[in-house]
Amino acid sequence: MSDKRPIGVFDSGVGGLTVVEQIRKILPGEDIIYFGDTARVPYGTKSKETITKFSVENVEFLMEKDVKLVVVACNTASSLGLDFLKRCFRVPIIGVIEPGAKGAVSLTRNNRIGVIGTNATISSGAYEKAIRKINPGIFVSKASCPLFVPLVEEGWADMPVTGQIASIYLTPLKSTKIDTLIMGCTHYPLLRETIQRVMGRGVMLVDSAKEVAREVKTILDSAGGLNTGGRKGKINFFVSDEPFRFVSVAERFLRRKISCVKRAV
Amino acid sequence: MSDKRPIGVFDSGVGGLTVVEQIRKILPGEDIIYFGDTARVPYGTKSKETITKFSVENVEFLMEKDVKLVVVACNTASSLGLDFLKRCFRVPIIGVIEPGAKGAVSLTRNNRIGVIGTNATISSGAYEKAIRKINPGIFVSKASCPLFVPLVEEGWADMPVTGQIASIYLTPLKSTKIDTLIMGCTHYPLLRETIQRVMGRGVMLVDSAKEVAREVKTILDSAGGLNTGGRKGKINFFVSDEPFRFVSVAERFLRRKISCVKRAV
Repeated sequence: MSDKRPIGVFDSGVGGLTVVEQIRKILPGEDIIYFGDTARVPYGTKSKETITKFSVENVEFLMEKDVKLVVVACNTASSLGLDFLKRCFRVPIIGVIEPGAKGAVSLTRNNRIGVIGTNATISSGAYEKAIRKINPGIFVSKASCPLFVPLVEEGWADMPVTGQIASIYLTPLKSTKIDTLIMGCTHYPLLRETIQRVMGRGVMLVDSAKEVAREVKTILDSAGGLNTGGRKGKINFFVSDEPFRFVSVAERFLRRKISCVKRAV
Repeated sequence: MSDKRPIGVFDSGVGGLTVVEQIRKILPGEDIIYFGDTARVPYGTKSKETITKFSVENVEFLMEKDVKLVVVACNTASSLGLDFLKRCFRVPIIGVIEPGAKGAVSLTRNNRIGVIGTNATISSGAYEKAIRKINPGIFVSKASCPLFVPLVEEGWADMPVTGQIASIYLTPLKSTKIDTLIMGCTHYPLLRETIQRVMGRGVMLVDSAKEVAREVKTILDSAGGLNTGGRKGKINFFVSDEPFRFVSVAERFLRRKISCVKRAV
């Protein structure tokens, strides 16, 4: 059996492309529809009600494109809107929190895990709940890092000032003796080197994107939903604001040129 | 004649409160309806089309409240959407660009003016056009400072790292020998001391809010539209996301407690 329908992925903006990359690596034959809500980005400073409303609209858009599965690539939307989305729609919907938590729990040796993310993600407590559901004995410390997203979008990932800001956010976390840190926002992998330098070499960094891609494969495989047609999958990008603004940041994320970006509304 | 209808003010978020404060100072008898589009903030990273669409919706909301005049307190919306808004609605609509430009032109002694703002405001060229309309002989230099808004919203106005970021953005501007600098974003007055320190004491900083308030008074006065009832005016705040998030940042802007914040949609 082969299901030729595309996989749908949405994010508040461009960050979800890190998830798209990982899906492409392990499922190269799948078509992907990506939706970035660039007219209303960011989600991380907004309320649960607003984020849920936006997320429902985003999934409705993807459903019109006849997707067979939806990945909520945005950590904030996964933290605050996932349960509601699962109740509203019939296709499988995968968030980034549970896969990220699973990845971290399998890595930690001292049972001390840190989580960083946007204000909304961190105050939701979603990662702690997911980690404790797997192993209630794990200690979790956390910090919100609201300036990381604007710093990445400004292209300042490697500036010395970004290192200083990372120190301000991460030093209290470092003192909690964690050995594993979840980068709970799709922008943060672009700051991986800076975060690693501040936390020290002994701390393992978890990027949910890889874990999510594995989850997508598992779910499609078990339901006979993989596209086994054998040709290389295509990606179509849709955004809610002007495409050209998306393209320049997207190319920084993907480290390659992209095309086929259309305005969704 | 006395027009008891309120003045409408909108901004992408909380920044427009600096304009509200100035209107209250010189027109204490006026009622004000403030709308902050906190569900879709920021505007400064988005396209003209999207900003204009949002601005039209914001003015429609204020018109339902029967306002007699609208102030577009957001520099980005003023730069990109004002002309369209003026064509769409019958009430007087005042932006922040022309008053700010006027203020700067009246202050400069060496005819060299600088402008700072969001990406969208700076790339629109709106301030240059407004300045050159008054005096085509004036030299204008400019810089976008995208991290200033998130730094203010994070409450980091007085952190040393904010001074370093200000140096990165403003040093090239300083070298153009301007004697006057327009703070072309309603958040920036909260960074006044940092900006002044980097630019040096010889550079005069222009905050459009005061100029806008004077313009509101002039227009209402000339049309017999002031509220001459003699009682103290009331302010009602409306936001498109949850009120409590607005309140905490708003109180930092106003340096006092506020109440009467309602969700608009």
